[in-house]
Amino acid sequence: MRPSTSTSGAALRAAHGAAKCRLLVCPHAASSPWACSTLNARPKLPSLRRGRPSTAVTSHRFYSDKPLPQANSRILGFCYGAAAWVGISITVVGVGIFGFFLYDASTYKEHATRTDIDVSQLALQPRRGGPKNLPIAEVFIDEDECEEKKRIKHKPRLVVLGGGWGGVALLKELNAEDYHITVISPTNYFLFTPMLPSATVGTLELRSLVEPIRRIISRVHGHFIRARAEDIEFSDKLVEVSQLDHQGKEVRFYVPYDKLVIAVGSVTNPHGVKGLENAFFLKDIDDARKIRNRVIHNLELACLPTTPDDERKRLLSFVVCGGGPTGVEFAAELYDLLNEDLTRHFPRLLRNEISVHLIQSRSHILNTYDETVSKYAEDRFSRDQVEVLTNSRVKEVRPDKIIFTQKQEDGKLTTKELPVGFCLWSTGVSQTAFCQRLAKKLASFQTNRHALETDTHLRLNGTPLGDVYAIGDCSTVQNNVADHIITFLRTLAWKRGQNPETLHLHFSDWRQVAMDVKKRFPQAVNHLKRLDKLFAEFDKDQSGTLDFGELRELLNQIDSKLTSLPATAQRAHQQGNYLAHKFNKMARLSDGLSANDIRDGDLDAAVYKAFEYHHLGSLAYIGNSAVFDLGDGWSLAGGLWAVYAWRSVYFAQSVSFRTRSLMAMDWAKRGVFGRDTDLMSF
Amino acid sequence: MRPSTSTSGAALRAAHGAAKCRLLVCPHAASSPWACSTLNARPKLPSLRRGRPSTAVTSHRFYSDKPLPQANSRILGFCYGAAAWVGISITVVGVGIFGFFLYDASTYKEHATRTDIDVSQLALQPRRGGPKNLPIAEVFIDEDECEEKKRIKHKPRLVVLGGGWGGVALLKELNAEDYHITVISPTNYFLFTPMLPSATVGTLELRSLVEPIRRIISRVHGHFIRARAEDIEFSDKLVEVSQLDHQGKEVRFYVPYDKLVIAVGSVTNPHGVKGLENAFFLKDIDDARKIRNRVIHNLELACLPTTPDDERKRLLSFVVCGGGPTGVEFAAELYDLLNEDLTRHFPRLLRNEISVHLIQSRSHILNTYDETVSKYAEDRFSRDQVEVLTNSRVKEVRPDKIIFTQKQEDGKLTTKELPVGFCLWSTGVSQTAFCQRLAKKLASFQTNRHALETDTHLRLNGTPLGDVYAIGDCSTVQNNVADHIITFLRTLAWKRGQNPETLHLHFSDWRQVAMDVKKRFPQAVNHLKRLDKLFAEFDKDQSGTLDFGELRELLNQIDSKLTSLPATAQRAHQQGNYLAHKFNKMARLSDGLSANDIRDGDLDAAVYKAFEYHHLGSLAYIGNSAVFDLGDGWSLAGGLWAVYAWRSVYFAQSVSFRTRSLMAMDWAKRGVFGRDTDLMSF
Repeated sequence: MRPSTSTSGAALRAAHGAAKCRLLVCPHAASSPWACSTLNARPKLPSLRRGRPSTAVTSHRFYSDKPLPQANSRILGFCYGAAAWVGISITVVGVGIFGFFLYDASTYKEHATRTDIDVSQLALQPRRGGPKNLPIAEVFIDEDECEEKKRIKHKPRLVVLGGGWGGVALLKELNAEDYHITVISPTNYFLFTPMLPSATVGTLELRSLVEPIRRIISRVHGHFIRARAEDIEFSDKLVEVSQLDHQGKEVRFYVPYDKLVIAVGSVTNPHGVKGLENAFFLKDIDDARKIRNRVIHNLELACLPTTPDDERKRLLSFVVCGGGPTGVEFAAELYDLLNEDLTRHFPRLLRNEISVHLIQSRSHILNTYDETVSKYAEDRFSRDQVEVLTNSRVKEVRPDKIIFTQKQEDGKLTTKELPVGFCLWSTGVSQTAFCQRLAKKLASFQTNRHALETDTHLRLNGTPLGDVYAIGDCSTVQNNVADHIITFLRTLAWKRGQNPETLHLHFSDWRQVAMDVKKRFPQAVNHLKRLDKLFAEFDKDQSGTLDFGELRELLNQIDSKLTSLPATAQRAHQQGNYLAHKFNKMARLSDGLSANDIRDGDLDAAVYKAFEYHHLGSLAYIGNSAVFDLGDGWSLAGGLWAVYAWRSVYFAQSVSFRTRSLMAMDWAKRGVFGRDTDLMSF
Repeated sequence: MRPSTSTSGAALRAAHGAAKCRLLVCPHAASSPWACSTLNARPKLPSLRRGRPSTAVTSHRFYSDKPLPQANSRILGFCYGAAAWVGISITVVGVGIFGFFLYDASTYKEHATRTDIDVSQLALQPRRGGPKNLPIAEVFIDEDECEEKKRIKHKPRLVVLGGGWGGVALLKELNAEDYHITVISPTNYFLFTPMLPSATVGTLELRSLVEPIRRIISRVHGHFIRARAEDIEFSDKLVEVSQLDHQGKEVRFYVPYDKLVIAVGSVTNPHGVKGLENAFFLKDIDDARKIRNRVIHNLELACLPTTPDDERKRLLSFVVCGGGPTGVEFAAELYDLLNEDLTRHFPRLLRNEISVHLIQSRSHILNTYDETVSKYAEDRFSRDQVEVLTNSRVKEVRPDKIIFTQKQEDGKLTTKELPVGFCLWSTGVSQTAFCQRLAKKLASFQTNRHALETDTHLRLNGTPLGDVYAIGDCSTVQNNVADHIITFLRTLAWKRGQNPETLHLHFSDWRQVAMDVKKRFPQAVNHLKRLDKLFAEFDKDQSGTLDFGELRELLNQIDSKLTSLPATAQRAHQQGNYLAHKFNKMARLSDGLSANDIRDGDLDAAVYKAFEYHHLGSLAYIGNSAVFDLGDGWSLAGGLWAVYAWRSVYFAQSVSFRTRSLMAMDWAKRGVFGRDTDLMSF
């Protein structure tokens, strides 16, 4: 694009105008960057004499020193300015697009890259072994394909079971080349679960919530096996995994490990309710897809001319069981869909006959949140015509109705019914079959019915120290301070040559014990703040010392105050991070440790602190507004600004640049085109 | 943002520099548009005296007339320029983002809109009737919900069966408020079929290829019923449709029509091959999803340590049956996926063991295209290691292998086998069960086994004129010129008072007949160019006239040259457009026609020309290159530029701004993040 005479003339005139401080925008840019460079490259243009510009300009020159007409100059200036900005915008966008196309063109590979690769015979035909004489996957087919993978071939084998929040947090923080990493998971993607309710109604695309695990592990040159963990042979250090082959026949094999991290998550808790086959769950991508299909299917059925009126009302009755964050957010997203998008294209009668109900067993929804937050959410829902049924327990889910009991104010139980076209079941989590099998195997060490118990270093109780870890929803950290009383007193007793059980602790001894407790049970720190008061309180006989019984009572009281960690993404994420940093440190120290022949014993405690959970707050979307519970009684709730804030938090937490971009695009799409009410169908 | 002193100073200095024609970029824009307006609003700034700027500038003034240091000015200028452009870009993008957020915030609806709506009792409880005494959907539940819909309540009822290329082209061109429109389709979206192969491998998202039909018909205030057309009662003007209710029980009802357009498309042609349950098809969204899942499933199975080597090779053997555009494009997209994305994250061994095969029954792939195009595609594939097996007919598809016969050069048939992990069947189309039922019902008028026959006005043969039309893949235009010989001769014979069969046509008569033929059979125009030559050729007895027999022979020869229209999106689109324009014109003329009491007879021919197909060319993507067959021997083939051109064509043809934006985003995503190799799983 070459500048025309008039453009340049206008530009120069405007530049002169700018010198008069009348207008300070970029008028000449209405042409293009090339115009500028062409002008630059025109040395023969008569340059203005400095200080005293000539007033007589010959006709072929572009520059006129005549005063610009005063009356027009503001309007003219504004027009120049506007034109300039339009031009600039177009140019910037144009250059951007051109650049992108150049980049895009470079991403196409012209020729096939088929190079010879070394593959170990053991990878193609694994040897059999282990207690069940199954194939053992010691070497993988991609083990020798590149230098990086060859280098880590003989590093300690770290096997991660599961690709959820815990596993992925671990993988993202691990140093490359310290371990030979294998991830085993039945799904080959990480799912950003907090946004799943958004995906059920088309606010976000499913694709934007997932990140392929292979992409995540490529940094650490890890291996991925899409299979399901079935069992662990702790003494042989083998994980037994299963997968269906192309004929649907189950194939089992072993994967050996040096360190194993169990991060397999949980399943939905059925609470022993009948008829859950009529309900939908919201744990993975497929659930979200099914829900979306069902919602749209119901809307379509409701439009049919042959659908009777009461049947239409039933089809449009959406019931959510469970008033936790998932249930609340799903109800909110559903309401948004119905309110913002449905009326645009579906008959309006549908909007009038739709009802959304939320059944909660406790007296408030979001009952783990601050009370003001619960209250705000309930108010919001009541304004939005989402019916909240508290103190209600579902007895049975039938294809066409839900039967539940509601506790009345006088304490009596009343049985009620609700016609239902769609029912979501989201009432907490319970243990997977795999974890139940492990717990049974380690029965003498595992007493919790809901999760695998670990010590505060996240090592699975009952397994050799440093071999097996468990993180995330499938695990719980055992806070049994009192049970470790002997451990705490051992050093002291040994120093004094006494039996721990006959020790009498002075205040200074107690302080030392408390420090040990804090180190081993970081979660107890909050309850060990006023050591003097505790000492005075439990020194029942006022002897100035604590005896064994008094100390045990003190520790028991602390135990009772320690709550188990929440089954949230946040906890899993922190635990994954914690393990990654510990493993990194262990790898760094491994040379020194092996030089000193330190191989066994409580290595974890020697090199790294115990796991401590820091609650960063909870948040939830409740329909064009969001609530934040920041802990310690701090909470926030608000409208659109809170929604943007809520999105920002998840945007920042999202696993990769890719998912972030996709999420941003999806939100933009929702703004421009609305949600996808019509996409799916049976 | 207020301008700092230094910024303004720099701006003025630079403006002065601009006046010297040294640098003509926008340096001050490194601040922001607000900066400009603030400067504008500062009247007390000392303006430069015209003509003779003061050389002594007091210290508080921003402007200095001192000559800029000559040595630095270029570099300085460049820096200013660069900074300015960065600033401009940031500002433009920033303003854009801010604006978008403002807009986005406006798209959230705060309060529920639940207004009272009139609903006819007949809509809630339709009366029963028709030959089968089914409910008749005469009134819909949204008929009275707004003014626009009330206005068209009593307009002629136009019912469209199917929401594919033909139906949607019709809907997009129809004038609003001329007809009471109802669309009946088993899927509630329009699918952009030419891009379906791209969606199978994740180059495009499925969502980007579909447009909800409700969005399309909202312009014409139409109604949509998600149901399947089962039968038509031509004499009662009722369509019988079926849908499953929530219990999976079939519900049937009638939809009355004044005009009916059948655009139900076609199904894949099984060609009587055994074992097609082991093959995949590519007709709709669900097919694409299944294919994507299967491809990824096979890749995952191939990674398992227990998969033997020959089994891995079988899993990675992808076979495409059918060398038409769909088959070729799928093979190309598959190859792209394997070549560009697979090797990034999957073991490289997979890439080495993958094979793609294309089985084609003819001697060339893309055999409906120009020969140079076929040749180019074959060369391209052979370079890309896609094996093309021509002259091959599939006999049977088994779960693990394909059996086919190949004609050797000596004409002998050899039976061969190919191990197969995935088989796509894309070998042409055949009639749906619904169309077969209609053809049987109208057996004396419908003789074509492959499609419903229409006249050149697209009216279904055998139905009352102007009642029922058929367009797209399900239909074929009957080009039986010779059969209409009596029609052509009738006027002439009547004028002369002769029997048509004893007429002798002079050249001028022949010219008149030819004009009639052209009008009624526009497709014949190409074969009626040299009327004199034809006359001379068929005037066998050199009598200077054509008798009835000679004319019939002439018309028969033209018939033999007329090929049936291709079953393509292009044809369906043109037919839909044609009908829309005709219907619009009919509606415009309807007042005049009814005033003159013209209700029956050949109204279509009276108001509008016959349908003429214009071939605009065919195109196909063949793996980082594309081919264009523009008809009449013109063809193009090339690399990346052709790919971009290919995309541009479909981008332009795409059904809405929404799908266009989504497609553009998807292409950008592919460039930045690669394809979604890992998303799906079983």
